[in-house]
Amino acid sequence: MTAWQLARRAERLNPSTIREILKITERPGIVSLAGGLPSADTFPVEAMRVATERVLREQPREALQYAASEGLGPLREWVAAELGSQGLRCEAGQVLITTGSQQGLDLVGKVLIDPGSTVAVESPTYLGALQAFAPYEPEFHALEGDDEGPRPEAVRAARGARFVYLLPNFQNPTGRVLPEARRLALLAAAQAVGLPLVEDNPYGDLWFDAPPPAPLAARWPEGVLYLGSFSKVLTPGFRLGYLVAPPALYPKLLQAKQAADLHTPGINQRVVHEVIKNGFLDQHVPTIRARYAAQCAAMAEALQRHMPEGTEWQRPQGGMFFWLRLPAGCDAMALLPQAVAQGIAYVPGAAFYAHTANNPADPRTLRLSFVTLSPDDIASGVATLGKVLRAHLDGTREDAP
Amino acid sequence: MTAWQLARRAERLNPSTIREILKITERPGIVSLAGGLPSADTFPVEAMRVATERVLREQPREALQYAASEGLGPLREWVAAELGSQGLRCEAGQVLITTGSQQGLDLVGKVLIDPGSTVAVESPTYLGALQAFAPYEPEFHALEGDDEGPRPEAVRAARGARFVYLLPNFQNPTGRVLPEARRLALLAAAQAVGLPLVEDNPYGDLWFDAPPPAPLAARWPEGVLYLGSFSKVLTPGFRLGYLVAPPALYPKLLQAKQAADLHTPGINQRVVHEVIKNGFLDQHVPTIRARYAAQCAAMAEALQRHMPEGTEWQRPQGGMFFWLRLPAGCDAMALLPQAVAQGIAYVPGAAFYAHTANNPADPRTLRLSFVTLSPDDIASGVATLGKVLRAHLDGTREDAP
Repeated sequence: MTAWQLARRAERLNPSTIREILKITERPGIVSLAGGLPSADTFPVEAMRVATERVLREQPREALQYAASEGLGPLREWVAAELGSQGLRCEAGQVLITTGSQQGLDLVGKVLIDPGSTVAVESPTYLGALQAFAPYEPEFHALEGDDEGPRPEAVRAARGARFVYLLPNFQNPTGRVLPEARRLALLAAAQAVGLPLVEDNPYGDLWFDAPPPAPLAARWPEGVLYLGSFSKVLTPGFRLGYLVAPPALYPKLLQAKQAADLHTPGINQRVVHEVIKNGFLDQHVPTIRARYAAQCAAMAEALQRHMPEGTEWQRPQGGMFFWLRLPAGCDAMALLPQAVAQGIAYVPGAAFYAHTANNPADPRTLRLSFVTLSPDDIASGVATLGKVLRAHLDGTREDAP
Repeated sequence: MTAWQLARRAERLNPSTIREILKITERPGIVSLAGGLPSADTFPVEAMRVATERVLREQPREALQYAASEGLGPLREWVAAELGSQGLRCEAGQVLITTGSQQGLDLVGKVLIDPGSTVAVESPTYLGALQAFAPYEPEFHALEGDDEGPRPEAVRAARGARFVYLLPNFQNPTGRVLPEARRLALLAAAQAVGLPLVEDNPYGDLWFDAPPPAPLAARWPEGVLYLGSFSKVLTPGFRLGYLVAPPALYPKLLQAKQAADLHTPGINQRVVHEVIKNGFLDQHVPTIRARYAAQCAAMAEALQRHMPEGTEWQRPQGGMFFWLRLPAGCDAMALLPQAVAQGIAYVPGAAFYAHTANNPADPRTLRLSFVTLSPDDIASGVATLGKVLRAHLDGTREDAP
């Protein structure tokens, strides 16, 4: 007899739809538009090799030993200086290095969410954030919005929530940027009702023509907790992210970090600092932007050519994703098996909605990634998607009385 | 106006006493017997350098990309095979790679502890486990025990707890091994009342003369969740641990892992697997054992020579720590400033007790680490400790009426 008894919060832990879909897409021969991964072609392998060699030669004992839970001092200083150059002035003492920014989301949930407390989120929003917060048993409140992001009145109406979770730049999944005017309006609304913000910015550096407006945290430092990541500008495999917390919150986040994994691997922090400390990203990130911009253009052209009438999308100004709304009569989840049978995959949009009574997922939505495929594969993948959709729509019309 | 509101569980997050003490001990000139760190002299720097170079040459795209939450397949297979050779037969599918075994403790807490549920622990026990579990708001239940570990009747009396947390081998802080007979008695007691066990084994490989008995999980696979680590046999700086879960629990632990940090850094997993895959630890771990055994012998001799009468300790058969009980009238916490003033530091035992009504910390206890100092420094550090204690005891006697 064994009596393992799960915690109630374990009911809120569930397999990721995306993860299950990605398993399908790993089949040979599938052109996957589903991935959320950055392009491995952008990984600066040689720079990381040289830096690793140097760290293991010059600081092996420090790099391989236990280390401070806050993170590596010089890396925290680098982060503070870099964010300062983007208008977000903060002290290195406010920077906590995390095991990917996913861990930042987990720590935020642990320190700020009680069972039953409300967390306001965009609709749709980053699935990983919903998964990180869910085990702390919040009630998700979906903010009404439009193409420019959540509406300020929706934020005012969320008064009393523990925080609003926002991805201002090239949002996952929609690719949308909050314009400057909307940022100011959202900040005014949040400040008016004393509603703090959690600003997640993994994609902000991936702009094509012009950088996005300054972070929300730059305008309301004590009311915004900011999350950043090295996953999209260097490599996700090192699992390096960071958060910048208002000083009042920092100690509890640090203690939660310590309890969670003592510290983020020291060698990874030292290698990344070694790579970036002398301006490497100033040369490297533009090469990623140029690559992704060309892939984005290829997808925009292919969508224009192949999508059936009635399909809606916005061309993103950066990031990794297109967000499509299919014509009436198309259900992205229901159509996925047919798409896979034709050799392509995408992520149905339903995965990105916090499922609440007032916020049903839009079954016509889906997400396409353009960063891991060549322009030719993008063109053929989108053409195939177009064929699948047209076949479905034609069949629907034939079935009609 | 900002309205950050902390979750109730944040009250259970507190600064680590040890952490604060370690800050003191980092002062130049302090001979620290306080550390819990392995010796940096044992880190196989050259092997890790060669392996890293190879991974970045042969598998850079895979090593630097996002990876599976379960961990690297070949590393999971290695763990299953290695544990099988110790009598713990399991499938690679039961192995979850964690960001240090500290993360394993956090995941255990997240999946198994509800607010108010009981968790039974040894007294004293590993502080980091108390810190990992505490934010999930358990009531800790301290198990009565003796020099051989918790008493079986204490385990029976803990019926209804979510689990018993045990460190069977060279426990932190006491250094104690559960003898085979006690293992069998504890297992019988736990099975009789259906009380699952969480077996934490970071130190088991660090035996001096003979390996400890087989893991508890080997005898009751469906009732024991097992945690292991590479921190003490290779390097803690890579943050690599693992857990082996009964199949019924694995999916929820995996989902909690995914929510916590997506996955443990892939490059770290690949490098460690590259280092160990051909039997490296069979040569390497004996060198650590020999080193620690010599340091342990130096400390045993020094304690014998310098401790005042009435001081009690057991000589450990492995691991990293001596656990002392000072003579009556000595309070280890109160004496620490005098020790630091004389140039040494230790960890007062009070830090390792779950503070519950029925389980006051024993103020006469303290923990000494022998693995980061040379035998000469150990001898002089312990001599200084002896002087501090004698001075205090002499003062106490003089003060006496």
